[in-house]
Amino acid sequence: MDALGYYNGNWGSLDEMTVSMNDRVCFFGDGVYDAAICHKKTIYRLDRHIDRFFNSAKLLEITPELSKEKLKTLLNEMTAKVDHDDVLVYWQASRGTGRRNHAFPEGTSNLYIMIKAASVTNLDKKVKLITVEDTRFLHCNIKTLNLIPNVIASQRAKEADAYEAVFHRGDIVTECAHSNVHILKDGTFITHPADNHILPGIARGHLVQVCGGLGIPVEEREFTLKELFDADEVLVSSTSTFGVGADHIDGKPAGGRAPELLKKIQDEMMADFHSVTGYDREGDRTL
Amino acid sequence: MDALGYYNGNWGSLDEMTVSMNDRVCFFGDGVYDAAICHKKTIYRLDRHIDRFFNSAKLLEITPELSKEKLKTLLNEMTAKVDHDDVLVYWQASRGTGRRNHAFPEGTSNLYIMIKAASVTNLDKKVKLITVEDTRFLHCNIKTLNLIPNVIASQRAKEADAYEAVFHRGDIVTECAHSNVHILKDGTFITHPADNHILPGIARGHLVQVCGGLGIPVEEREFTLKELFDADEVLVSSTSTFGVGADHIDGKPAGGRAPELLKKIQDEMMADFHSVTGYDREGDRTL
Repeated sequence: MDALGYYNGNWGSLDEMTVSMNDRVCFFGDGVYDAAICHKKTIYRLDRHIDRFFNSAKLLEITPELSKEKLKTLLNEMTAKVDHDDVLVYWQASRGTGRRNHAFPEGTSNLYIMIKAASVTNLDKKVKLITVEDTRFLHCNIKTLNLIPNVIASQRAKEADAYEAVFHRGDIVTECAHSNVHILKDGTFITHPADNHILPGIARGHLVQVCGGLGIPVEEREFTLKELFDADEVLVSSTSTFGVGADHIDGKPAGGRAPELLKKIQDEMMADFHSVTGYDREGDRTL
Repeated sequence: MDALGYYNGNWGSLDEMTVSMNDRVCFFGDGVYDAAICHKKTIYRLDRHIDRFFNSAKLLEITPELSKEKLKTLLNEMTAKVDHDDVLVYWQASRGTGRRNHAFPEGTSNLYIMIKAASVTNLDKKVKLITVEDTRFLHCNIKTLNLIPNVIASQRAKEADAYEAVFHRGDIVTECAHSNVHILKDGTFITHPADNHILPGIARGHLVQVCGGLGIPVEEREFTLKELFDADEVLVSSTSTFGVGADHIDGKPAGGRAPELLKKIQDEMMADFHSVTGYDREGDRTL
């Protein structure tokens, strides 16, 4: 199968799957999700993604129908049905089904899975970024399905031929539309604290851990737009992007002043992905 | 038919309708909506709801498939199929269909309609309110499908046996989870300005107009939680609630100091609904 969709026990071709019009995603975006990258049937860092998913659900008072173990088993089963070596395994829980009424419905939550071809980002090439005012709500630590500002910012990035949009609340850089953002300055790795203004990225956490292992000082603190533009390197990370460097922000040159340190971090991130999934860095990286 | 669902040309029983899993409402809540109350096939203030819907769509760069006139015709056609005198006519447009990718998809937007029994709120009885910190995004003027904070606040209200939750950003009262809120003080009607912190309610606009007609001074300005608690009367309005008074907020007595002025406004609002739809105030009000 090219791409798979799953909804409450039924599965089939993603593009043909349907869901109930009374599912609360249809009128409230009332649910949470997570997603992990997968190479040759090994879903990378799945336990962490599952843990984050359950935490998002708990923060919104949604009870996933399956236990962590059963969800893992199901995700692996569904992934096995898809005919690609490299896929994104995405799943979500909505609060349930019922005619539109704001307060919580009776009954159980709904489980969705979507699996389609996707591969990790090539870290050899740098990317362009733009900046966008962060007008989102104050629950960005929860991976919810209320993503309109992220959609609009991503569209602005696409129109500017950029890889991502960097959000800032006033002067403070928070994260990107679907990634975290970090800077290297004077040998230190600096990233926004994991508070309610950003998603606690799994790759972000891994970068912090990798920097620790490499003896690179880490500061989890707010940083400004000025610091972003003046950074030695700017890194963007997500589930499928293990720290890509940026060379332009809003059309101005950025980063490029600590290429060896950047590469050291990237190599360590890719080495872990290789060791866990068998991903062939040289052979597969052009995907 | 008891309740009707419509999706891109297909319609049927609301509880049996399905939509594409690749519809962007399913993973981004990427759409806008509006809703109007209807008595005996007359959809009340439909033109204003249609205008607001097109404005919401424009602000999110979504292009509805049907013209205003064709949408009106369709809403009336669908409403005629439902076997209730009093219904809520709800419709929404999502940005379209495509495998999950933040930037805008190719193709056209999707149109949903949902029609179910609902009637206007009885204004003779006062309601209880609670207050909740307003943690929403800065696009509350757009009637979007990103409604998780509204869902949570509504659930808190339900748990407190209250009719609605009043949002406040710090000290400033904005609106409710699915209504606007206003106060009467020393004979003046005070309501939050129609900026990006509140939805420009159709009933809110009507209340302003009615007060004008009755010679009641109107102030469209921010007001504080203290002013809310100290108000002579507190009014909540929405598409189906033409200004219900509140008698308790967070368990404390509220309002009740200008009952005649409140009733004068309510009577004027109900009189208009009667004159447009033929709604029998005495006969139907117990619905």
